[in-house]
Amino acid sequence: MKVEIGVKALGANERQAEANRRRLREAGWVAVNLLSSPGSGKTSLIEAALPRLEAVCAVAVVEGDVETARDAERVAAAGGRAVQIETRGACHLDARMVARALDELELGRPASGWGLLLVENVGNLVCPAEYLLGEELRVVLLSTPEGDDKVAKYPEVFRTADAVVLNKMDLAPYLDFRVERVGRDLAAVRPGVPVFPLSARSGEGVEAWLEWLVRNARERLELRKSAGA
Amino acid sequence: MKVEIGVKALGANERQAEANRRRLREAGWVAVNLLSSPGSGKTSLIEAALPRLEAVCAVAVVEGDVETARDAERVAAAGGRAVQIETRGACHLDARMVARALDELELGRPASGWGLLLVENVGNLVCPAEYLLGEELRVVLLSTPEGDDKVAKYPEVFRTADAVVLNKMDLAPYLDFRVERVGRDLAAVRPGVPVFPLSARSGEGVEAWLEWLVRNARERLELRKSAGA
Repeated sequence: MKVEIGVKALGANERQAEANRRRLREAGWVAVNLLSSPGSGKTSLIEAALPRLEAVCAVAVVEGDVETARDAERVAAAGGRAVQIETRGACHLDARMVARALDELELGRPASGWGLLLVENVGNLVCPAEYLLGEELRVVLLSTPEGDDKVAKYPEVFRTADAVVLNKMDLAPYLDFRVERVGRDLAAVRPGVPVFPLSARSGEGVEAWLEWLVRNARERLELRKSAGA
Repeated sequence: MKVEIGVKALGANERQAEANRRRLREAGWVAVNLLSSPGSGKTSLIEAALPRLEAVCAVAVVEGDVETARDAERVAAAGGRAVQIETRGACHLDARMVARALDELELGRPASGWGLLLVENVGNLVCPAEYLLGEELRVVLLSTPEGDDKVAKYPEVFRTADAVVLNKMDLAPYLDFRVERVGRDLAAVRPGVPVFPLSARSGEGVEAWLEWLVRNARERLELRKSAGA
């Protein structure tokens, strides 16, 4: 019985996620779901990305946290348009929470033609993996201090990644982090997934990831247009 | 209805946790629940603690992970007695999983008079907080690369901590981690909780935490004895 209820809840979430995706699509927006452990640097990566992305397209941010609005404040301080979702105990975002954030953002068709909605999930490598939010792309971050064994230990979230960001590469000289071990484990759970080693703090490597992000977001929009959706 | 089912499940978990605690108590063992994000260094702390603890009391380890038995292998390589629980997708340990691990460990009364059972939970700052396992003490780890805002953002797990370990202090010189900010946030959610800055890698500070651990574990055993339990 418990399992059935779980399945029903996931079914309702997928329907809401699909509605979010359609709503965004109609306004020319692409959502990106950012997932990682607490403290891997999701907010820092968004801060580093904002000025460069805003030269290319419209950008808005949804910040998910169990408590506090600190991340939305950080993004706003960096000049970004952000709303905060406080989950009040829940260990992941769901599509209904994102729908409410969309109401608040009132995203219209951007002057630049299209927009990127960056959705920062709750810091958690397990629960958020199961919940679609309406995203076109999933980016999973892993930071070097967390250790190079995390893909093997938390494979589910990496199994759904469109790209993997290895953040805090500036700390790698002080750690025993083997990028090649992560690559080996990823090859087993998500063959061919692009991996971007970078440092959100120093900015090194961020450009390559952004290039991938913009190209893929655009492709998703074009695909949808050509599919008549 | 969903909430009620959740409450029932938690009630059943608490009863099983109490049964685990009684079972351990009767054999002279104290369980410690170790909680943190993925990669904060729970296994490394156990590795650093093992040789020093084994000079004082019997030690056994339960390793919780979503997948892989790597942590139990690491503990065994460090000379420890360990069993692995693979939760196969579940985002936290529960008391029933620990009961099965106790069956496997077959803990008898130690020659040294008492024993410490270190239980390493799944790496997750949200879900494990709600689930008692039968522990007498809860230790929450936070590592410096995760950032000094984690107590404010994930208060629930810190609200139940008997001690907080700040791990990877050896990386602090390369980060903007303010110990005093963590202290301030802890004072709001868990006033008076002892905080142990340390480095499991270099060993610095580990001794102070172990002293606290051994003293408090012993006190819990004595209290129970004097209460005739």
